[in-house]
Amino acid sequence: MPWFGLDIGGTLTKLVYFEPTDHGEYMDTQEELLRGKTIRHYLVHNKAYGETGIRDEHLQLDEVIMNGRIGTLHFIRFPTDRMIPFIQLVKSKGFAQMSSTVCATGGGAIKYAREAELELAMQLHKADELESLISGIEFIAENYPDECYYYDNPLDDEKCRQVIWRWSSARCSSTDEQYQREGRNESGLQYPYVVCNIGSGVSVLVVRGHNEFERVSGSSIGGGFFQGLCSLLCNSQSFEDSIELATRGDNRNVDKLVGDIYGCGYESIGLPSDTVAASFGKISSPQDRENVRVEDLARSALVTTANNIGSIALNVAKQHGVERIVFVGNFLRVNPIAARHLANAMNFWSKGSKKALFLKHEGYFGAVGCLDKLVDVTEMRRLLRAKGVNISLDEMSP
Amino acid sequence: MPWFGLDIGGTLTKLVYFEPTDHGEYMDTQEELLRGKTIRHYLVHNKAYGETGIRDEHLQLDEVIMNGRIGTLHFIRFPTDRMIPFIQLVKSKGFAQMSSTVCATGGGAIKYAREAELELAMQLHKADELESLISGIEFIAENYPDECYYYDNPLDDEKCRQVIWRWSSARCSSTDEQYQREGRNESGLQYPYVVCNIGSGVSVLVVRGHNEFERVSGSSIGGGFFQGLCSLLCNSQSFEDSIELATRGDNRNVDKLVGDIYGCGYESIGLPSDTVAASFGKISSPQDRENVRVEDLARSALVTTANNIGSIALNVAKQHGVERIVFVGNFLRVNPIAARHLANAMNFWSKGSKKALFLKHEGYFGAVGCLDKLVDVTEMRRLLRAKGVNISLDEMSP
Repeated sequence: MPWFGLDIGGTLTKLVYFEPTDHGEYMDTQEELLRGKTIRHYLVHNKAYGETGIRDEHLQLDEVIMNGRIGTLHFIRFPTDRMIPFIQLVKSKGFAQMSSTVCATGGGAIKYAREAELELAMQLHKADELESLISGIEFIAENYPDECYYYDNPLDDEKCRQVIWRWSSARCSSTDEQYQREGRNESGLQYPYVVCNIGSGVSVLVVRGHNEFERVSGSSIGGGFFQGLCSLLCNSQSFEDSIELATRGDNRNVDKLVGDIYGCGYESIGLPSDTVAASFGKISSPQDRENVRVEDLARSALVTTANNIGSIALNVAKQHGVERIVFVGNFLRVNPIAARHLANAMNFWSKGSKKALFLKHEGYFGAVGCLDKLVDVTEMRRLLRAKGVNISLDEMSP
Repeated sequence: MPWFGLDIGGTLTKLVYFEPTDHGEYMDTQEELLRGKTIRHYLVHNKAYGETGIRDEHLQLDEVIMNGRIGTLHFIRFPTDRMIPFIQLVKSKGFAQMSSTVCATGGGAIKYAREAELELAMQLHKADELESLISGIEFIAENYPDECYYYDNPLDDEKCRQVIWRWSSARCSSTDEQYQREGRNESGLQYPYVVCNIGSGVSVLVVRGHNEFERVSGSSIGGGFFQGLCSLLCNSQSFEDSIELATRGDNRNVDKLVGDIYGCGYESIGLPSDTVAASFGKISSPQDRENVRVEDLARSALVTTANNIGSIALNVAKQHGVERIVFVGNFLRVNPIAARHLANAMNFWSKGSKKALFLKHEGYFGAVGCLDKLVDVTEMRRLLRAKGVNISLDEMSP
């Protein structure tokens, strides 16, 4: 049985594949071993699958230890509305015969459970979405010390730079040397932290310890909103196109700034002249509207989304007395401009007291968490079976 | 000198005029008395001024006591981008000769100060915007016990009803009888409360006592955002048109709901199936998009705005331990559908524990607060002048 974690989201489906490289046994029969090799070959030797599946090679993690096994993690994504063709692809490649159960999370794990069962005679073992997300974040952060970063001078095109943040020790790279000297080698995350997951929609969670978290807020203004507006306003056909447009745009042609209303800043309440007072606020004025380009509309949609999410995440952090705020989710994919606006929003709303943290594997944590659980459970099952005990996956889940 | 309060906002300018009806003296000379009559006649006998000025007759308040004088409050508005023509109208009607100072607040009070000075030789005495807003709310709430209301069953077209809330005693009309029997007659507001002012942009304030308030949050997703999107997406030319479109629309054709992603609700974290997961989230799907009408787009823009504001206001209330949240501002003008969505959002986010409160004079509080101050100051000046002391308005302001 190959080790897959599947996260079927509102827009994108994320698939994480663990390829053991320690040449140990993980197949039970010769036939399984053969099929496993076929799958491995297909997945690892391609970067694109079907018409829309893509492997994010730059995210690949080698030498990962997962429940005692050493291997490589591969990260693959395809649009959720291609879920049915994907199921057919899986069927045609013979993957489905490999296993009777795949571990899946995300809304689609529930919605597509029936299709998977009917078409593939395959059960989608459903893992809780938020539990998988947090468990995936913690798995990657423990295994990959360079996962987390923040932005210095986020909106300054010349001075902006990514800085690695050693999450485990709550230190950034500028103090790494000292950290090394002290010989400290903490692992894992520093609790508590806020996770802001930006997919089609937005979820905000407070994490206080291992398996101790709560979804405390959320927003419908996320990636789906951004792409929906860009599709309507700029005729953009893809997320990548929308980001490309936004990167070239200037939201100040579209948004009404504090300075446009006051003629200056409103300093007594901390609103500088360049603060956005009303997103899309210049559109109602015919003379302002003449100057607006589609690039500017895309940028405004992006800034509106990022500023609003920054505000919500910071309010959650303040309300719950949490210092660290980390942003994940596929809205941040190929989208440094959104991350930079989020970083800037965090500086603005927190008056410079908090930094937005980002994780390199952006939208894959739910799938990783789900895979982690699967490996855990299947390895346990293998051990038990070796002792003559047969147990189904569902019986073993908590 | 006629008593005007002017609030020059990002989109609308609000003008409040106090017409004394107690026939006492408030003009100093015969000439002033005559001009005062001309102005009163022009303002009170018209409902429209120039091309775009409108008097909201339904909001008129009679028998108002303002600093010892009895009179009628008139509420007039025009678009801020007609400010220059308005200044010219004021000039042509001879109002400007009446007074050397007009009390004004809002961003435009700063931006248009120079025009008013150059064209009319009239000084705009600038009052702080948020101070005027709070002072106007407190003035109206003390004088008009039916000012405040909430919605029962906000999204049920048949069962929805407005219920008057006796702010001063923190009781709603359903307990009025008992309240009367007890013979209690408290006045003013119950502190603390949160004010969410929705104009072009959004400000959220916590008010803890008389003159004791702080702007703690805000959003660029307000009336300007809504009208900007409706203008771009529905070719709507006016706020009234946009509201009319939104009222006939169904956002479920545009927004991706929790049920669209999960096939059901995500009850374990309190997200029912009909919760909006991603605003405009259905647009990216070609087959969903075919069914979308402009009315649906307008409704989605409205629901996005209202839900987001509801969430921000509630987070502020929770963070600061405040029970009462009141929504004001011209986004709520002619817009019961927005108020009903806000009421629903408040029910949703607070899990039924908090009600959204609304005030009937919506967007006029800044102008009222500014007028209140003017009356105060000018009456004091008149008294002093009667005693032989001459003092300018600016010297008297705090």
